[in-house]
Amino acid sequence: MSELVTFGETMLRLSPPDHERLEAADEFEVRAAGAESNVAIAAERLGTPSTWLSKVPETPLGRRVVSELRGYGIETDVVWSHRGRQGTYYLEHAGKPRGTNVVYDRENAAVTTAEAREFDIDVVQDAKVFFTSGITPALSSTLRETTANMLKAARQGGTTTAFDFNYRRKLWTPDEARETLTRLFPGIDVLVIAARDARTVLGFEGDPRQLAHKLGSQYDFTTVVVTRGSEGAVGWHDSVVHDQPAYETDTVDAIGTGDAFTGAFIARRLDGDDVPTALEYAAAAAALKRTIPGDVALVTEEEVEAVVEENGTDISR
Amino acid sequence: MSELVTFGETMLRLSPPDHERLEAADEFEVRAAGAESNVAIAAERLGTPSTWLSKVPETPLGRRVVSELRGYGIETDVVWSHRGRQGTYYLEHAGKPRGTNVVYDRENAAVTTAEAREFDIDVVQDAKVFFTSGITPALSSTLRETTANMLKAARQGGTTTAFDFNYRRKLWTPDEARETLTRLFPGIDVLVIAARDARTVLGFEGDPRQLAHKLGSQYDFTTVVVTRGSEGAVGWHDSVVHDQPAYETDTVDAIGTGDAFTGAFIARRLDGDDVPTALEYAAAAAALKRTIPGDVALVTEEEVEAVVEENGTDISR
Amino acid sequence: MSELVTFGETMLRLSPPDHERLEAADEFEVRAAGAESNVAIAAERLGTPSTWLSKVPETPLGRRVVSELRGYGIETDVVWSHRGRQGTYYLEHAGKPRGTNVVYDRENAAVTTAEAREFDIDVVQDAKVFFTSGITPALSSTLRETTANMLKAARQGGTTTAFDFNYRRKLWTPDEARETLTRLFPGIDVLVIAARDARTVLGFEGDPRQLAHKLGSQYDFTTVVVTRGSEGAVGWHDSVVHDQPAYETDTVDAIGTGDAFTGAFIARRLDGDDVPTALEYAAAAAALKRTIPGDVALVTEEEVEAVVEENGTDISR
Amino acid sequence: MSELVTFGETMLRLSPPDHERLEAADEFEVRAAGAESNVAIAAERLGTPSTWLSKVPETPLGRRVVSELRGYGIETDVVWSHRGRQGTYYLEHAGKPRGTNVVYDRENAAVTTAEAREFDIDVVQDAKVFFTSGITPALSSTLRETTANMLKAARQGGTTTAFDFNYRRKLWTPDEARETLTRLFPGIDVLVIAARDARTVLGFEGDPRQLAHKLGSQYDFTTVVVTRGSEGAVGWHDSVVHDQPAYETDTVDAIGTGDAFTGAFIARRLDGDDVPTALEYAAAAAALKRTIPGDVALVTEEEVEAVVEENGTDISR
Amino acid sequence: MSELVTFGETMLRLSPPDHERLEAADEFEVRAAGAESNVAIAAERLGTPSTWLSKVPETPLGRRVVSELRGYGIETDVVWSHRGRQGTYYLEHAGKPRGTNVVYDRENAAVTTAEAREFDIDVVQDAKVFFTSGITPALSSTLRETTANMLKAARQGGTTTAFDFNYRRKLWTPDEARETLTRLFPGIDVLVIAARDARTVLGFEGDPRQLAHKLGSQYDFTTVVVTRGSEGAVGWHDSVVHDQPAYETDTVDAIGTGDAFTGAFIARRLDGDDVPTALEYAAAAAALKRTIPGDVALVTEEEVEAVVEENGTDISR
Amino acid sequence: MSELVTFGETMLRLSPPDHERLEAADEFEVRAAGAESNVAIAAERLGTPSTWLSKVPETPLGRRVVSELRGYGIETDVVWSHRGRQGTYYLEHAGKPRGTNVVYDRENAAVTTAEAREFDIDVVQDAKVFFTSGITPALSSTLRETTANMLKAARQGGTTTAFDFNYRRKLWTPDEARETLTRLFPGIDVLVIAARDARTVLGFEGDPRQLAHKLGSQYDFTTVVVTRGSEGAVGWHDSVVHDQPAYETDTVDAIGTGDAFTGAFIARRLDGDDVPTALEYAAAAAALKRTIPGDVALVTEEEVEAVVEENGTDISR
Ligand SMILES: [Ca+2]
Ligand SMILES: [Ca+2]
Ligand SMILES: [Ca+2]
Ligand SMILES: [Ca+2]
Ligand SMILES: [Ca+2]
Ligand SMILES: [Ca+2]
Ligand SMILES: [Ca+2]
Ligand SMILES: [Ca+2]
Ligand SMILES: [Ca+2]
Ligand SMILES: [Ca+2]
Ligand SMILES: [Ca+2]
Ligand SMILES: [Ca+2]
Ligand code: NI
Ligand code: NI
Ligand code: NI
Ligand code: NI
Ligand code: NI
Ligand code: NI
Ligand code: NI
Ligand code: NI
Ligand code: NI
Ligand code: NI
Ligand code: NI
Ligand code: NI
Ligand code: NI
Ligand code: NI
Ligand code: NI
Ligand code: NI
Ligand code: NI
Ligand code: NI
Repeated sequence: MSELVTFGETMLRLSPPDHERLEAADEFEVRAAGAESNVAIAAERLGTPSTWLSKVPETPLGRRVVSELRGYGIETDVVWSHRGRQGTYYLEHAGKPRGTNVVYDRENAAVTTAEAREFDIDVVQDAKVFFTSGITPALSSTLRETTANMLKAARQGGTTTAFDFNYRRKLWTPDEARETLTRLFPGIDVLVIAARDARTVLGFEGDPRQLAHKLGSQYDFTTVVVTRGSEGAVGWHDSVVHDQPAYETDTVDAIGTGDAFTGAFIARRLDGDDVPTALEYAAAAAALKRTIPGDVALVTEEEVEAVVEENGTDISR
Repeated sequence: MSELVTFGETMLRLSPPDHERLEAADEFEVRAAGAESNVAIAAERLGTPSTWLSKVPETPLGRRVVSELRGYGIETDVVWSHRGRQGTYYLEHAGKPRGTNVVYDRENAAVTTAEAREFDIDVVQDAKVFFTSGITPALSSTLRETTANMLKAARQGGTTTAFDFNYRRKLWTPDEARETLTRLFPGIDVLVIAARDARTVLGFEGDPRQLAHKLGSQYDFTTVVVTRGSEGAVGWHDSVVHDQPAYETDTVDAIGTGDAFTGAFIARRLDGDDVPTALEYAAAAAALKRTIPGDVALVTEEEVEAVVEENGTDISR
Repeated sequence: MSELVTFGETMLRLSPPDHERLEAADEFEVRAAGAESNVAIAAERLGTPSTWLSKVPETPLGRRVVSELRGYGIETDVVWSHRGRQGTYYLEHAGKPRGTNVVYDRENAAVTTAEAREFDIDVVQDAKVFFTSGITPALSSTLRETTANMLKAARQGGTTTAFDFNYRRKLWTPDEARETLTRLFPGIDVLVIAARDARTVLGFEGDPRQLAHKLGSQYDFTTVVVTRGSEGAVGWHDSVVHDQPAYETDTVDAIGTGDAFTGAFIARRLDGDDVPTALEYAAAAAALKRTIPGDVALVTEEEVEAVVEENGTDISR
Repeated sequence: MSELVTFGETMLRLSPPDHERLEAADEFEVRAAGAESNVAIAAERLGTPSTWLSKVPETPLGRRVVSELRGYGIETDVVWSHRGRQGTYYLEHAGKPRGTNVVYDRENAAVTTAEAREFDIDVVQDAKVFFTSGITPALSSTLRETTANMLKAARQGGTTTAFDFNYRRKLWTPDEARETLTRLFPGIDVLVIAARDARTVLGFEGDPRQLAHKLGSQYDFTTVVVTRGSEGAVGWHDSVVHDQPAYETDTVDAIGTGDAFTGAFIARRLDGDDVPTALEYAAAAAALKRTIPGDVALVTEEEVEAVVEENGTDISR
Repeated sequence: MSELVTFGETMLRLSPPDHERLEAADEFEVRAAGAESNVAIAAERLGTPSTWLSKVPETPLGRRVVSELRGYGIETDVVWSHRGRQGTYYLEHAGKPRGTNVVYDRENAAVTTAEAREFDIDVVQDAKVFFTSGITPALSSTLRETTANMLKAARQGGTTTAFDFNYRRKLWTPDEARETLTRLFPGIDVLVIAARDARTVLGFEGDPRQLAHKLGSQYDFTTVVVTRGSEGAVGWHDSVVHDQPAYETDTVDAIGTGDAFTGAFIARRLDGDDVPTALEYAAAAAALKRTIPGDVALVTEEEVEAVVEENGTDISR
Repeated sequence: MSELVTFGETMLRLSPPDHERLEAADEFEVRAAGAESNVAIAAERLGTPSTWLSKVPETPLGRRVVSELRGYGIETDVVWSHRGRQGTYYLEHAGKPRGTNVVYDRENAAVTTAEAREFDIDVVQDAKVFFTSGITPALSSTLRETTANMLKAARQGGTTTAFDFNYRRKLWTPDEARETLTRLFPGIDVLVIAARDARTVLGFEGDPRQLAHKLGSQYDFTTVVVTRGSEGAVGWHDSVVHDQPAYETDTVDAIGTGDAFTGAFIARRLDGDDVPTALEYAAAAAALKRTIPGDVALVTEEEVEAVVEENGTDISR
């Protein structure tokens, strides 16, 4: 039985190799990519049995996505659908001054019609943590309702609820996001949020420590983690704020960094670590993720530990 | 000014290399692919200045499609749209006993909202031939109307209208197709149709010669070409039926064979060839197409002529 | 709970793309490949929940193998080992007059030390069928004993035992194989054997029908299937011999054909089909396998049914 | 009708992927590459309709080059030649302390026989700007004459002439270059020149500001741009010198940086921008170019504007 | 000391993968390819120590060619040149009805300036066989003289001279070839010639047996081999004609078939085989060559023997 | 006759492209890689004729390794073995905080059974320098003895002996290494050792200068080079210590840096350079190596000289 259950969309990620532009691409690398499955995998890699729930088209593309995720070791309990597309996104890697660009092509995905009653809710209620992110309710009105119902069911089953705010400006406006997501806040125990989102979507002000404190105080979260990219994160818990710097990293692929952080944080909390220790492992997993192509934190516990214990070498042979 | 103008959707074609299954694919080859642009290119390659009309999303993917088509030498007069997707299809090559499989992901493409008034209709009315296919009206009710309006405008401008029946069972039922397409028949001068479609969609019976004769007699076409895959084609014109066998070919990619045939047929007719001669060049272009990866007949006039004149060698050096 | 449980080694298969010779290769395609996992996957694809048992090194290479297999949908219950290598084989595809060549590099693999007591034997005894092949006892003296013990345990648990003779001349001599494998025959219910092996290893004579009859009569098998490559197979059951021709196929990769056949045969027998019907589906799965790169029969039930019902088309769109 | 017309050679650029040495390469990436077509494309991408003139062999290689260029959106008005080669260059990317290396194989290219009378000179005289570079007269004595004749014709047609000095030490000596190019100076309105070339070929001394001033004073240019690599550029116009720093960039491919700069500068000047503003956009286009593989600045106006307005993000989603 | 010494040009062969057209190619596979080095390698693979002589530019491209050839095991004694290009050819694979196409880009190669006095002629005179082909004198007037001088020196040293007629219509006319090559005939001991060349260049008539007989009678050859593609070869020796059918083969790359034949024939003759036996091995090596990508017969003696002894299997494991 | 002879194992190096993890790899790049062949190649590239001795399985894999090495220009005098594997290693490139990881799979390689009497010892005794490294005796007890015998034979033949300490923790413990390698020290003239190995394996203390001094004083070496990664090296000779800083480099592949250093040092010493000059060229070769993928320093003398003379440019054209 899985300790962590996550729910959300996983897309096919199509990206040209070697920094080629989409406009000139002759081939795409194909990978499965979604915030909630990323979180499940990161937690599984750190020892937490995890399940990802979703609704997927019964097509070669849908099976392609589930096959890759299953290969990473998590359980995949999906509703196979005869309606709706497999969502995709096109990814164009780039450095300064351009920046990596994402072109979503995920409208009318099968998952947008997923209702809570389609899933075996026991899987959620028997887990220790249920996780989803702000992307899920951004995808359809049905999913707004489903997200609320899943969080409610988790709470009823005594399952801790964790949530990554994950604002995506290509999916909805800050106003839409704030209205929808703050309505979900009462059902959430652990909130992860980027400092930028706390400011531009929720309208809070201050440095990350202040943001964490304000969020923790204003709402009824047990834990708030405010992330700030290459500058690390702060964790608020029991009215205390903990600082966690980011580890230095040679970035190959920055996508999925936050999900690696969150999955590792949940895994270590489930394993009994206190918040500062869990943040340390989360930052280490996030740093390692950036050295790996794709959305997924294909790391080992030993590697994460080595980063925390600063046992790095240039070449291990 | 282009002699041939075609109108229709061109998709991104995504296919795994080396016969890999979609379900196991780690990379996709990317190409532009659409019946009407294929026809324009085949005609251009045989010397007929050609333009392709369409509506395309103003995204890297839309630009990717137009760029590739323009590279093949045709003019591309497209409406750039801020709404609607770039249609795609996933292609899985396979031999016996599986057969090549196409997974369409083209719903809500930008082109589905294209209206006749969005195009400079002079381009159509100044051309000698206007071409579209049965795929276009299958894509949306708007396009059903647009197709009718474009054919009407062409006729009014004195432009010959050519049409490939192109029934696609993954887009609509035989009943829907028959009802819609036969309504367009009065506005069509040159009809190309697969023998199989004439039978299973239109309900005709008989061998290809009989099908061509019946179609030519029952409707007001000036020319009817009935294709029958690896067994060649027959052409009906001035109440006479001409047989054209297929050339032997080592097939690398069968997609686009019919479009190469049709584009070459139109080009040679525009160049003054009689129907039997045009059919000969059409069959040669179709055979050459099958030796080339992708949807497009990237051939030269010299190569087509060499096939007709049977001047082949194994290695030319 | 899995209905089919298989046990054996799965290797990393390293092969140069595009018919390049090993001696000139600059890159290898990497895949997981093993007769017993191939059989489990073929059965799973046809609807039979299946588990593969093995012993695998706890290295990135061992995890690579398990990850790919798990992605195909089967359960993988492996003993992770800190000793022993990940077995590999190098594959060089070639046509006439060379023939495909396999270079084994599988000595001292972790699996060669696997003992029956390392596995949860309930998994075997709760299954309906247990399968392994003649490759397994060829790998080490420990595995000879383990194979015997696993078959014995299966029999004790009321689990049907199935066995593919699978003689590999690069692993042992005909004499060694005959001596070892005939000793296992009393514990086997369903035997699959190539006509060539029945002749050159076991010393039987006659056509495949006669071979099947002799094997079925001389030993205590309930079912004997004699395969004969591109000429199909015969099945002996209840003293009756059934002929099954091979389906025509455009071969992309012949490796794994026999495993697809056996997995499908087992799956359909478990589903209640009689022997002639199961042979028909087995031959269809085998024909489809040959159109797919890699060892694995990545097919769907619908595709297998379409072959049996001869509903093939050239292009499905 | 194109506002900008450029004239010069475009080569096939052959480069091993992933920093492989030419000496060990098993594959080459293939791209079209030439200073004058690069400039035309950069200008076209920023909204200036542009045409590239050249002479190209009527071979698959010549068509390969023209097809790629046409795909980038420019018009290609080429003389198809039955004599002369398609020029190529081999490119070996490398970082410190080696540096990227170019091996030219462009002797006897078709373009080396191009004469002014082979082109429709109206295309030049109807344009607003005519551009070529110091590479063109370096290629043959015929081209020295042709370059002079084209510049003369442009001037006669009232077309502004722009010229990039582009000294290439692998094509000719500084003495040869100085003698030939300074003779062209009286026919040039806008000169772009690297500070290094101004010093080592023309023998000027001083910092880039001084170089620009001296060049502008000594000859009859209306505008002089002196580029200085990663340190930006200075522009001299109406006796005033403007400084333009370079934007920070993560370089993927430095080839074509100067051409992106020049094309963007011309486009913005044609659009009415003053010299300092045009320099700013030119520097932004140059910085973006360096993030893109290949010679060509495959950028959008929006991207260039975003750099100028410093709206960069790490990931846009 | 090498028993066989060959002299000629080896080019860089650039070919798009997967049947892509040159006109649409984004990448080229790179290989070393030349008739005379192919012959040396085929002989070396069958046990004859061989050296290839040539003149090569001292550039990364020249070193690339020599490095690959040296890797195949032959000795390479080349004159490194600071003038002249590395010759290339572009290869477009295709099946019926197009046929494989070769685009030469080999003019002004370094080798075209090679003079006999640049080589250590002892290497030729100490060998048992000296080989070159009709391609070499086709490349320049210098090479016409050099070829004659090398053949003369070999004869003077007591070295047997072997020559493949190898007419290439893209290099010279039949008249030029006939005039030049027949003048070399008196210095040649062993002639290999395609039946087609004997007819269309030399003007002989008759079936291959008659062609061999006429050539052997009219000139002073000791041995004449007339090849006839997929129909095998005939060998004339001591006034007797021997027929050698071709072996059946699944062709991956037909280029180099004749060179594999000739190299193997020479190797077996040097090893003491009579003409019919040497022809048998030559045909086997030629058949194997066709299963291998590239110009080179990367075979083993064991493989050639297995073909002669008809010991093929589908899969060897 | 070679001036430098090296002896040791060369492996097949298998690495996923583009920073993919081994656990997720679908393809491997294949290269030959071994410290002693790396040293021979680096020396050959700088003008020292070099031979590599080893024992290699007579399989396509063994031939693959020898073919690549021979292509780099060295002589390969190998014992072809019918027993023992071709050793391999799997390489996973990664930056901070992970570090590049090597997974050895080299047990029971053919070379582990190599005895001194299998080699033509004249090759060693006629050379000027014999080189092997601490990896060789780590591979088997036979090789421990063979290494000692080869060093002894070299000394007897008047051949200078050079040795790279090359401690590999994945092969043996520091204690085992110290015990075995210090026993070889009396037979060694030139020792190269990483500062880290001098400390953690040999137990010396101090900065690199002190380490070099202590090693030189305590044992009977003529020369000691202590390397310290990106901080350069120190050389001890005639009781004087010379400092050599590292050149700045854009690293593409760090593997083989030390071997490039050692090979270049030996080559320049053989060419008559004093120790400080040889160290300078060694550091330059090492810096260049890091810009090149693979284990091998595929550099030219001109490139090494340019680094020493600081003649670098960004782009050479
Ligand atoms: Ca491209
Ligand atoms: Ca399961
Ligand atoms: Ca795959
Ligand atoms: Ca190769
Ligand atoms: Ca499980
Ligand atoms: Ca290589
Ligand atoms: Ca045009
Ligand atoms: Ca391929
Ligand atoms: Ca392409
Ligand atoms: Ca040599
Ligand atoms: Ca790459
Ligand atoms: Ca992968
Ligand atoms: Ni279903
Ligand atoms: Ni499970
Ligand atoms: Ni990047
Ligand atoms: Ni791949
Ligand atoms: Ni717009
Ligand atoms: Ni236009
Ligand atoms: Ni195919
Ligand atoms: Ni463990
Ligand atoms: Ni094949
Ligand atoms: Ni490659
Ligand atoms: Ni022409
Ligand atoms: Ni780079
Ligand atoms: Ni590609
Ligand atoms: Ni030189
Ligand atoms: Ni082919
Ligand atoms: Ni042997
Ligand atoms: Ni040698
Ligand atoms: Ni890297």
